[in-house]
Amino acid sequence: MSYFKKVLIANRGEIARRIIKTCHRLGIETVAVYSDADADTPCVKEAGEARHIGGSQAKESYLNMEKIIQTAKDTGADAIHPGYGFLSENTKFTKLCEDAGITFIGPDAEKIQLMGDKIEARRHMQKAGVPVVPGWDGKLDSAEHALEIAEELGYPLMLKASAGGGGIGMHIVYNKEELTKSFSSAQQTAGASFGDDTVFLERFIEHARHIEVQIAADHKGHAIHLFERECSIQRRNQKVIEESPSPFLTEALRRKLCETAVTGVKEIGYTNAGTVEFIFDDETGDFYFLEMNTRLQVEHPVTEEITGIDLVELQLKIAAGEDIGFTQADIKHNGYAIEARLYAEDPDTYFPSPGKLTKLKLPEGIGRFDFAYEEGNTVSPFYDPMVGKIIVHGANREEALDWLDNVLDGIEIEGITTNLPLLKQLVNEKDFREGSYTTNYLQTRKAGRE
Amino acid sequence: MSYFKKVLIANRGEIARRIIKTCHRLGIETVAVYSDADADTPCVKEAGEARHIGGSQAKESYLNMEKIIQTAKDTGADAIHPGYGFLSENTKFTKLCEDAGITFIGPDAEKIQLMGDKIEARRHMQKAGVPVVPGWDGKLDSAEHALEIAEELGYPLMLKASAGGGGIGMHIVYNKEELTKSFSSAQQTAGASFGDDTVFLERFIEHARHIEVQIAADHKGHAIHLFERECSIQRRNQKVIEESPSPFLTEALRRKLCETAVTGVKEIGYTNAGTVEFIFDDETGDFYFLEMNTRLQVEHPVTEEITGIDLVELQLKIAAGEDIGFTQADIKHNGYAIEARLYAEDPDTYFPSPGKLTKLKLPEGIGRFDFAYEEGNTVSPFYDPMVGKIIVHGANREEALDWLDNVLDGIEIEGITTNLPLLKQLVNEKDFREGSYTTNYLQTRKAGRE
Repeated sequence: MSYFKKVLIANRGEIARRIIKTCHRLGIETVAVYSDADADTPCVKEAGEARHIGGSQAKESYLNMEKIIQTAKDTGADAIHPGYGFLSENTKFTKLCEDAGITFIGPDAEKIQLMGDKIEARRHMQKAGVPVVPGWDGKLDSAEHALEIAEELGYPLMLKASAGGGGIGMHIVYNKEELTKSFSSAQQTAGASFGDDTVFLERFIEHARHIEVQIAADHKGHAIHLFERECSIQRRNQKVIEESPSPFLTEALRRKLCETAVTGVKEIGYTNAGTVEFIFDDETGDFYFLEMNTRLQVEHPVTEEITGIDLVELQLKIAAGEDIGFTQADIKHNGYAIEARLYAEDPDTYFPSPGKLTKLKLPEGIGRFDFAYEEGNTVSPFYDPMVGKIIVHGANREEALDWLDNVLDGIEIEGITTNLPLLKQLVNEKDFREGSYTTNYLQTRKAGRE
Repeated sequence: MSYFKKVLIANRGEIARRIIKTCHRLGIETVAVYSDADADTPCVKEAGEARHIGGSQAKESYLNMEKIIQTAKDTGADAIHPGYGFLSENTKFTKLCEDAGITFIGPDAEKIQLMGDKIEARRHMQKAGVPVVPGWDGKLDSAEHALEIAEELGYPLMLKASAGGGGIGMHIVYNKEELTKSFSSAQQTAGASFGDDTVFLERFIEHARHIEVQIAADHKGHAIHLFERECSIQRRNQKVIEESPSPFLTEALRRKLCETAVTGVKEIGYTNAGTVEFIFDDETGDFYFLEMNTRLQVEHPVTEEITGIDLVELQLKIAAGEDIGFTQADIKHNGYAIEARLYAEDPDTYFPSPGKLTKLKLPEGIGRFDFAYEEGNTVSPFYDPMVGKIIVHGANREEALDWLDNVLDGIEIEGITTNLPLLKQLVNEKDFREGSYTTNYLQTRKAGRE
């Protein structure tokens, strides 16, 4: 069952360790690449080989495509796993892999491109009958043009970068004054961040839930879903807590949502693992396609916990040209899983707080810990401040939350400021416990405290 | 959902930590008790309160009933969880609990007594239509009497202590010379170990598998099973690796076995969690009742992993007089789980090797670790040499074994001799991988190597 001989992991931290684990289990050799800042991190020790590829700045190392391809060649790697972020959705990189005869573990360049263009993605999904957020998918030539369209759609609206992601350059506008003010700023941010200043308009759903569906499709036309993940607890448009299943969905709605995602995926002829993100209007119960991520997600472990399926193995298997090997009917969900992200950041301001982990002790027994660092490491200021993820599984949501509470209590971390106190508060808050929350929960909750 | 206000744990090590975890999650206060040797162990720190109860010898501390009951009274505990071993199947202790108005978390004294008497247990199961190993359940007055019975049953035979357990005092005899030689020795061991020198004879099944069924029953007459555990990998009649489900059973046989266990449990009016052990004849496929354990088993985590059900919570719930709260149809098994026991012992001679754990590092991510000790602790010579249990879950047996292999590789342990090298070999052995093994696997495998 060796899908590849040697896999180079073009990433760092917890996701590099996660990929190494599955490769190790499957008897596939591994190559870690690392920057100056990451020389002492666990993934460097855990990989079969490790190569230093450059300075701490991402563009000198984890975004340095030529260096990474050269390292793959030098070490004899026949495949590259990009993890998430960095080069995971970069079509230039996938083409470089192809030219070098190295398998990129992910979908082909065309599909990444298609889903990377938010307007194109929207159009294709709409064509497959997948509902999309009411909005304007044409090009907005100017602020004047945007104002015209906005008048038709009605406020509030969201101004988004077509090439964007991660909440970067998104503006919520409640009236024409705000739209006028935000338009050129949104264009500039889009241009600077993504090299493409195209922006578009979408209805802004005020009481929204973010629910996404994990899918996988192979090269033989088989496509399956692995149920949904509820990711409404976010700060700065980035997720903090993820769960599966969603406490919001009825069984009928779950089936509809998941089947819709599979339909969309089949429509575009997608291959490998991916995530179809939806936004749910908490007031009407309607759901709309938001975007598709053509890579492994940070929050994939909750899906692994409830289905028992190893998503990294599934990615390797499909990339190697093999069938998924099981059918939709074979996939069951069992119990409830929750992931909490432990960030090196101020829990009130969300301002990153890198530094040396003078103590890091994780409790034994219950709980899965996907951590980037170990005691003695320095949380780097150069990358995302996530220290690690805590994943727990329970028979139901209440039990999983109780376990999370218990496990968080058992974590000993010193030397840096983290959001651990926030996570501990969250799991015991009445509204969160009751499943009554939307994407602005952290914001409004915070506003309420001040 | 607070079943009790405060639970005293009359045990030590990993099982004390395990019980504390569930109590903590459910908001139940905990009291740990400890001996001289265990003062620095993690469970002492993790409990809400901890009381020193005596010297390192078990009879001075963990078997000191009066001291434990007094400690429960002093701390205001309204229930005692006995864990496994020590006082967990001691009816004198359950009666002391009753007299003190403290709930014993387990079945009532009468059922412990009934199942503790192996001959009585055998008779009751037979009455319920549960197949038992062909044998003689009458009293054996003398070696002569035994020889007579043996002639009827046919060799090989097993000579067992009626009050026994854990393989103590068991003799396998292949002919009358061996039986004559073993009889008084078996009686003496039985008398010395269990205070009752009654022995009995059973057919010895040479190619046997040990498969047990986890059950639970409440005070309202509801009884369920939580599938089986395969425990054939044993040394000195004690388990080393446990799995669920069993690779040996067909779905039809699994159903039959599990339903038989529930029938037996209902027949005796059992309450709380328990385990019905069966022996499988690998040659004929017949199964026979072996014995029933009226307590939580060391290997309970594999059942928790595949069902998502917290067995300690189930014990607390039933002991508090509540219904199980779900039905047989609600219980699904998902994927495959394996537990490996890490012992402080010589992997060749199985001779205990206590000492100071100068290093103990467990890998993060995949794997559940139920460990008695942490780095810096001393593995005590006074108790069972188990350092901890490693539990992994996978989509199927192969994947679970691969994960176990991977996780064992990630364990760093120094200062004492352990069976870690044996565990690592085992998971990669062809016969074990193929599920082709019986209870003498470790013995014959070892004989093969020498």
